Amino acid sequence: MLTTEELAQVCVVLVRARNPVNIGAAARAMHDFGFGRLRVVNQYPPPLEMARSAVDASEVIAHAVAFPNVAEAVADCTLVVGTTEVGERDLQHELLALSEAAVRMRAELRRGDGWTGRVAVLFGSEKTGLSNQELSHCDWLLTVPMHEHAGLRHASMNLGQAVAVCLYELVRDAPNDHLLDAPKAAEPAHAAGLERLTILLGEVLEQTEYARRHPANRDSEAHVRRLVRRMRLDAADLTVWMGILRQVLWKLGGNDEK
Amino acid sequence: MLTTEELAQVCVVLVRARNPVNIGAAARAMHDFGFGRLRVVNQYPPPLEMARSAVDASEVIAHAVAFPNVAEAVADCTLVVGTTEVGERDLQHELLALSEAAVRMRAELRRGDGWTGRVAVLFGSEKTGLSNQELSHCDWLLTVPMHEHAGLRHASMNLGQAVAVCLYELVRDAPNDHLLDAPKAAEPAHAAGLERLTILLGEVLEQTEYARRHPANRDSEAHVRRLVRRMRLDAADLTVWMGILRQVLWKLGGNDEK
Repeated sequence: MLTTEELAQVCVVLVRARNPVNIGAAARAMHDFGFGRLRVVNQYPPPLEMARSAVDASEVIAHAVAFPNVAEAVADCTLVVGTTEVGERDLQHELLALSEAAVRMRAELRRGDGWTGRVAVLFGSEKTGLSNQELSHCDWLLTVPMHEHAGLRHASMNLGQAVAVCLYELVRDAPNDHLLDAPKAAEPAHAAGLERLTILLGEVLEQTEYARRHPANRDSEAHVRRLVRRMRLDAADLTVWMGILRQVLWKLGGNDEK
Repeated sequence: MLTTEELAQVCVVLVRARNPVNIGAAARAMHDFGFGRLRVVNQYPPPLEMARSAVDASEVIAHAVAFPNVAEAVADCTLVVGTTEVGERDLQHELLALSEAAVRMRAELRRGDGWTGRVAVLFGSEKTGLSNQELSHCDWLLTVPMHEHAGLRHASMNLGQAVAVCLYELVRDAPNDHLLDAPKAAEPAHAAGLERLTILLGEVLEQTEYARRHPANRDSEAHVRRLVRRMRLDAADLTVWMGILRQVLWKLGGNDEK
């Protein structure tokens, strides 16, 4: 994950976005992944106030800054990255897949020698992407690898989805494990408990005549044990299954369990 | 990247999606990353025809299938994964970050040995996510790690963006995949079979009065379903357990199984 300081050094720059809903969607993705610096480049003031559809992104939208051109929007950045579809046009730039691009962008944010790198990621308009003129402001380009559909012109990603995927990759690095919780840590069943369950299940098979109907090979106990082991029980579920089988035996009347 | 065959074995299941635009956005992300199997679970027929806003996703939408409930939507799947927000509710399931989850899902798609794993990824409604009842159909859950905003309720991702990010991660190259255990050779049980076992076990709990002695919470069926799912049965063991439970019911005399 990126630190708060690193997150604050990333600018998402939407160039000629046409649809306010997409600006809102981009802001929402930024909020989700902890980014806050949204810049919008439009010749005419963009309808930012119409972009407030974004749930929980109002702070991102509120702090969004409009610029009249790309040069001014990226002026304070130390690395400018353009996004593009593969095959979109003759590329004059180095082109990286998103995952490699993210490594480089994180490196830029972490250079630290007493100063801080600031990274701009440019997204073009929904219809035409970034123009060659706009791309010329970029150090290099990234692309989100997509599926090639035979015989079909290459699809472009939805703008909000492209922003979400790019920002996800940027923070993806080491997932913060502390967010993930306990069930994983469930205490496994011990062999002794599994053995008790094996014996109980064996009794159930005897008393229900299952064992007689499914003629056991010589190692039928081993069969039952392997069946139990393959359940991969944790300690809590072992207790549940013990209870169920005891209850079955009690109901069958062949056992003095209460 | 996944092969064409592997891509075809992934089902994106939208449960109670309310907004046709989001169904369209999910379909578009599926198209972008090469997936085609969209399933929509709604009590009433969903407005699929309203979801055609999705550019270039018309083929995905055209082949989308509507189901009345989660059980039927995942019946032919060997691995069922739910998506959730961290902290959304008390989790009964193992929870993995998306990147780890993708490794496991790819492993399921690549088990091979003459049969094919099929993976369902469930996304809940925009407002409420997946209910506990719906989650009980899942083997485990994944979450997209998001930023924790101090003092703010946790944002949920936009549905179309969540689908895009999850599918991106699934097709993203993961150098760590080779670290996974050699896949188990056994053919896994399908969800439809696990559902039959859930019902049988529920009958056993009823007839042995286990259910009465262990006062069930409201979602006792979901409890039983999760217990069954945690067994991680392969197809052969599923058959064995079905046989055992049928025999128990037969012996209890409350069932007309032979």
